[in-house]
Amino acid sequence: MESIGHLFVLSGPSGAGKSSLRERVLRIFPEVGYSVSHTTRPPRDGEIEGKDYHFVSAKTFRAMRKAGVFVECAEVHGNYYGTSREQLANHLRERRDLLLEIDVQGARQVKACFPHACFIFVLPPNRDTLERRLQFRGTELQEDVKSRLENASKELLEAPWYDYLIINDVLEQAVEALAAIIRATRFRREAVLPRFINLLQPE
Amino acid sequence: MESIGHLFVLSGPSGAGKSSLRERVLRIFPEVGYSVSHTTRPPRDGEIEGKDYHFVSAKTFRAMRKAGVFVECAEVHGNYYGTSREQLANHLRERRDLLLEIDVQGARQVKACFPHACFIFVLPPNRDTLERRLQFRGTELQEDVKSRLENASKELLEAPWYDYLIINDVLEQAVEALAAIIRATRFRREAVLPRFINLLQPE
Repeated sequence: MESIGHLFVLSGPSGAGKSSLRERVLRIFPEVGYSVSHTTRPPRDGEIEGKDYHFVSAKTFRAMRKAGVFVECAEVHGNYYGTSREQLANHLRERRDLLLEIDVQGARQVKACFPHACFIFVLPPNRDTLERRLQFRGTELQEDVKSRLENASKELLEAPWYDYLIINDVLEQAVEALAAIIRATRFRREAVLPRFINLLQPE
Repeated sequence: MESIGHLFVLSGPSGAGKSSLRERVLRIFPEVGYSVSHTTRPPRDGEIEGKDYHFVSAKTFRAMRKAGVFVECAEVHGNYYGTSREQLANHLRERRDLLLEIDVQGARQVKACFPHACFIFVLPPNRDTLERRLQFRGTELQEDVKSRLENASKELLEAPWYDYLIINDVLEQAVEALAAIIRATRFRREAVLPRFINLLQPE
C-alpha cells in the first residue's frame, strides 16, 4: 500500500491558454515533472526539442506507436501527438508527481489506464476570447485558425467528465486555481492513508 | 442546474487541532460561513454563546432533536452536539459556502443527506502528540483526558471514508492544506459546469 506520484492531466482547446498556465504552475512546483510529448507537428518559433516536444517524423511516430511506445496518442489538426509509457511509469515509480498536457482523445486513453488521475480542463472565458486568442497567436495560417475553432467546439463537449474546470480569464487566477488543485490532491485520502495506517490501528 | 454553496465538513479527534485550524482558515475566507453547533457541554473559559456554540440544556436539546431541528446530532463524551437544519439550508440556498466542525457520527449523518459535500479529517501526527495535546489542554479533568483518548482511537478508524486527510503537525501547513482544498473544490466540475453550459453548446 505504498503511495505513488500523482498524475495530473491538463486538457483544453487551443487558445484556452494551457501552455502558459502549465509553465507558470511548474515554476511554483519544481518537483512536479512534465511529460514531454512526441509530435509530428513542426516546431513553432522558439520551441526547443526535448523541452517543448520531441519532434519526430510521421514515419518514426507510426513505428513507435506500432511498438506500443505510447500510453496515449492522438491525431489533432493533422498532426500526431503521443506520451511515452516509459517516461510516465518512471516518474510515478519514483513517487514523483507528473503533469501531462494532452488533448481530450489522449486524456480518455489515460483515464482508462489511470482512472484516479486528476483531470483538469482549461476553458476560455467565452467564445469571443477563444477566437481572438487563436487569431492573434500569429503562428497559425488562417485555415488553421478555422479548423482549430471547429475542433475547440468539439473539445469543449468533453469538459463535463473532467474532475476540475478552470476558466482561464485572468492567467494569475487560473494559476492559483491549478496550484490549489495540485496542493489539495496531495491531501486526498488515497495519498495520505498509506502513511498513517499505524496511527489508525487501535493499540 | 444552478450552483449552490459548497459544504465543507471538518472532523477529527479532540486534540487534533480542528478549532485552531478552522479559525485560521475562516480568516482567509471571510465569505465562508461557519455553522455554530448547539451543545449541552458547559462553556470552556473564553467561549462565547452564539459564536463558539449555542449552549443549551439537555432538556432543551432533546426537545429540539424531537422536533427535527437538527440535520445531524451526536453524543460525544456524554454531551450532545447538533447542527441546525435551517441554518445549513439558509446558507446553501444563498449560495454561500459553509463549514461544519462536527464529530464523525454527525459527519456520517451529513454524508447521507449531502453525499457530495467535501469531508475533511484532521489527524494528529502521531499518538504521542495527541496525548500530549489533550493533557496540556488543561481545561479537562484527568478522567476526561482518558475518555477522550479512547474516543480518539475509535474516531481515527473513520478517517478512511473522508475525502481529504490533513495531518496537523505544523499548524501553518495544515492551514495551507485546508485553504487549498477549499479553493480547489470551487473548481470541481459540479461547481463550474452550470455557469458554462452555454459555452459548451456547439453553435
